[in-house]
Amino acid sequence: MFENEEKTNIESLGEFGLISHLTKNITLTQKSTVKGVGDDAAVLNFEGKKTLISTDLLLEGIHFDLAYTPLKHLGYKAIQVNLSDIYAMNGTASQVTVSLGMSSKFPLEAIEELYEGIYLACANYNVDIVGGDTSASKQGLVISVTSIGYADEQDVVYRNTAEEGDLICVSGDLGGAYTGLQLLEREKLVYIENPNIQPDLEGKDYIVERQLKPEARKDIIDLLKELSVKPTAMIDVSDGLASEILHICKQSNKGCKLYEEKIPIDPMTYETAREFGLDPTVCALSGGEDYELLFTVKQADYDKIKHKMDFSIIGYITEPNEGCSLITKSGNQHELKAQGWNAFKAENK
Amino acid sequence: MFENEEKTNIESLGEFGLISHLTKNITLTQKSTVKGVGDDAAVLNFEGKKTLISTDLLLEGIHFDLAYTPLKHLGYKAIQVNLSDIYAMNGTASQVTVSLGMSSKFPLEAIEELYEGIYLACANYNVDIVGGDTSASKQGLVISVTSIGYADEQDVVYRNTAEEGDLICVSGDLGGAYTGLQLLEREKLVYIENPNIQPDLEGKDYIVERQLKPEARKDIIDLLKELSVKPTAMIDVSDGLASEILHICKQSNKGCKLYEEKIPIDPMTYETAREFGLDPTVCALSGGEDYELLFTVKQADYDKIKHKMDFSIIGYITEPNEGCSLITKSGNQHELKAQGWNAFKAENK
Repeated sequence: MFENEEKTNIESLGEFGLISHLTKNITLTQKSTVKGVGDDAAVLNFEGKKTLISTDLLLEGIHFDLAYTPLKHLGYKAIQVNLSDIYAMNGTASQVTVSLGMSSKFPLEAIEELYEGIYLACANYNVDIVGGDTSASKQGLVISVTSIGYADEQDVVYRNTAEEGDLICVSGDLGGAYTGLQLLEREKLVYIENPNIQPDLEGKDYIVERQLKPEARKDIIDLLKELSVKPTAMIDVSDGLASEILHICKQSNKGCKLYEEKIPIDPMTYETAREFGLDPTVCALSGGEDYELLFTVKQADYDKIKHKMDFSIIGYITEPNEGCSLITKSGNQHELKAQGWNAFKAENK
Repeated sequence: MFENEEKTNIESLGEFGLISHLTKNITLTQKSTVKGVGDDAAVLNFEGKKTLISTDLLLEGIHFDLAYTPLKHLGYKAIQVNLSDIYAMNGTASQVTVSLGMSSKFPLEAIEELYEGIYLACANYNVDIVGGDTSASKQGLVISVTSIGYADEQDVVYRNTAEEGDLICVSGDLGGAYTGLQLLEREKLVYIENPNIQPDLEGKDYIVERQLKPEARKDIIDLLKELSVKPTAMIDVSDGLASEILHICKQSNKGCKLYEEKIPIDPMTYETAREFGLDPTVCALSGGEDYELLFTVKQADYDKIKHKMDFSIIGYITEPNEGCSLITKSGNQHELKAQGWNAFKAENK
């Protein structure tokens, strides 16, 4: 990718040189940022609000494959998957810290491309970069992001507060990131076998982008505020719909019924899943990485949300002894099982 | 280490099983922790205080060598190096998030031992574990810790606020962690050559412990409060005295004079450095990993601190045009240079 460009060795910059190079263009825009990069710790001011903290680790060969992941997209995604957790608390994301481990043979230009994506995501979502750590890594790229946000105490939405009768809603559509991944993996194999064949991703932009460049659903949080709807419980869809609704039900000590026909699946996801011989519903239930928001609302809020195109009502919360089940299009009832992505199994794929 | 014990495969537990196994004994003690592990984000309450955030990445083969680092010590150290950053802001550390990446072949018992050290460090320092991430890793053990704390706005101490004439102080003694590391590296080589020879660390407990199990200097922060001394600037010594005082001087736009004879060096550090043909002062200036606190105080506070055994006065802050220099025992003046630990060069050692 950098063959015709001049490469700068990061070893020659050293750790402090690299940090200063990468952070010199940081601009702070958040009122809550008192002090950002450049001291032992960042100093933040959330006044009367609660502070929200979440963290994610992204490891090369487990969470991403540099064979088909552009570094700018990777940087963008690393921020999005973290902000998504703050929105899933119904909070405002305001800061991130970004730690990177990379081979000292990595050219500076590659790190800059990764950072371009990080900066872009932070700019798009009004988030300050306030700290981090940078290190050599002996075996591959390591990205650790911590996201920080805030909310008024009465606005925070947990996972364990769903009530019987609540409507189950999900934003956007599901399964796209997973089918996009299948496509990228297939084209990678084709390329390995014959590097002269160009990857065939034509017309598949949407699902490829769902995998490579997800967008955290800040807009849904804003919309719910506008509608004066406070979800009763919420979680983001990182491991697949089944795994997430089971988290809500288990932690709330409730059951649920989901309707297969209500699960939002984009036509491109549907068609691509079929091409791969996969059940589109299974892709939505167990695929993961969609970073949509799954939330429950009181039935009394139905009129406020019924005509909103940004999310779908896919089921409802029941008593715990009814269990968690999926009503299929043919009317059968199946127990929901979490078969989401397991990082420890992924290693062996 | 686990040869005679039954091993549990973490693959069989899966990510959620592992997280739940590792977090089931977490007890929350901090008033500021509203919600810990188990939701999309932790919820913290710092009322009228400022929030402090710092993060560090520890990578196998770069920051630690499992050949001679007991996992319990490693867990303990991973927390200490992070808390140290919060104390260096004159803050109270109150929470951490802990992310781990490890081979799925790692036995559960090994992870538990690592966590034992993490738990012990958190218990000793009154810190809650409120979140994290767990993943398989193809690249060895990855530990990413984010520490969170708080302080009243007027108590926060930055790096860039040292004034001309301020006294430069450092807690404890320096160079021990580095000479301890030399010793461990030597015994590792001896062992590789002949596994029947037992490591010879007798009588070297102090410096080996300085390397393997550092203690963040919360006690110094408490002592300074007790003495009603607010440092004018502060930083923790992770990269060596020279590198740290240069950070303070550069960011404060000042110079400094340090006196070699005043630099606190433990006799065991001194003697071991000599055994290795190293200059003990160079070990103190450039060795790093001591996790002591380096701070400046107003001359007016001299009477309050002069008889304190917990820290040493090692020099003073000057006008910037005087530069940063070390006055040697023989009275010569040398320009101070940061030759601290460079993670990007360490990779090639």
